[in-house]
Amino acid sequence: MIRGKVIGQLWSTKRIETMPNGGLLEVETDKGDRLIAFDPLGCAVDEAVLITQGSVAAAYFTKFKAPIDALIIGSIDETG
Amino acid sequence: MIRGKVIGQLWSTKRIETMPNGGLLEVETDKGDRLIAFDPLGCAVDEAVLITQGSVAAAYFTKFKAPIDALIIGSIDETG
Amino acid sequence: MIRGKVIGQLWSTKRIETMPNGGLLEVETDKGDRLIAFDPLGCAVDEAVLITQGSVAAAYFTKFKAPIDALIIGSIDETG
Amino acid sequence: MIRGKVIGQLWSTKRIETMPNGGLLEVETDKGDRLIAFDPLGCAVDEAVLITQGSVAAAYFTKFKAPIDALIIGSIDETG
Amino acid sequence: MIRGKVIGQLWSTKRIETMPNGGLLEVETDKGDRLIAFDPLGCAVDEAVLITQGSVAAAYFTKFKAPIDALIIGSIDETG
Repeated sequence: MIRGKVIGQLWSTKRIETMPNGGLLEVETDKGDRLIAFDPLGCAVDEAVLITQGSVAAAYFTKFKAPIDALIIGSIDETG
Repeated sequence: MIRGKVIGQLWSTKRIETMPNGGLLEVETDKGDRLIAFDPLGCAVDEAVLITQGSVAAAYFTKFKAPIDALIIGSIDETG
Repeated sequence: MIRGKVIGQLWSTKRIETMPNGGLLEVETDKGDRLIAFDPLGCAVDEAVLITQGSVAAAYFTKFKAPIDALIIGSIDETG
Repeated sequence: MIRGKVIGQLWSTKRIETMPNGGLLEVETDKGDRLIAFDPLGCAVDEAVLITQGSVAAAYFTKFKAPIDALIIGSIDETG
Repeated sequence: MIRGKVIGQLWSTKRIETMPNGGLLEVETDKGDRLIAFDPLGCAVDEAVLITQGSVAAAYFTKFKAPIDALIIGSIDETG
């Protein structure tokens, strides 16, 4: 997994039907790269989060095949 | 997922049989990398798009095994 | 696989339900990148470890679908 | 997918049994990286090709599990 | 796949139970990156090898789920 910091949210009205409902957050990684992750936890801007990627992220969605390759799986405790 | 901007289209006449019909768009990412993504949404040049990669992209095709490892899953709203 | 050196541990109290119990270690790779890996072996800070990534890491968890895309699979012998 | 240009061919006599018969081409990507892709299309040196990677590439082989993580899926039209 | 050159071997005594028996070789890629690959072919130091990565590497192991995300699939012929 990688660490990231939430820097914003984005919306996509024109999208494929299998996109799950829920927040899409823009995250900046330690290395300065940016990616967009699905957020099932309701994280806020500036929150430090843990992100899993690839088919492992999609496997979180068990009722349908979601086209999600980046998922926030936790918020990192400040003492962490 | 990653953000990208559509910069062009490409065609491949000589191709394997399992290639799905539809647009192949060239996209430039935030980092300046370029990739080719399948476009099920009819996006235009300069449109900001959201791209999923790897086996998650191929899983969009449910009737056959498509050799697609990058898929445009949405157009990013300008307010996003 | 990649080599890494354990540089710390982190905790995530607010997390998705499918996160397995166990240590999450921060690891620095040879190239200087940092990633977070699940540790089933009880490794210590400064220990040199071997990490597998992607769906191969998640496949270690056979009873449920764990959202783990990086797993410590061994500690590297000093003579290695 | 990524674009690449064929720069050569390679042979491997000592190899695992599940390697499919067929050409292995060395390809240089736009970024200057080099990778080896399986070629089911009979491409030539200097040909511009489209490459898919990861498990999506291996899924092209339906009769057995081929250890192929990069596959040429098309030749790019010059007008593309 | 990627090309690499074997630069050494490593051992891991403390490891997870699903690690297959066999050689773990350290390989340097064309780009100068280093990775650890499972070697089913008995390659030697300085040998030029072909490596497959990700779940495609793990699929080589059919009797159990091996935590292997990099596999040497061939030795590259010198004339290659």
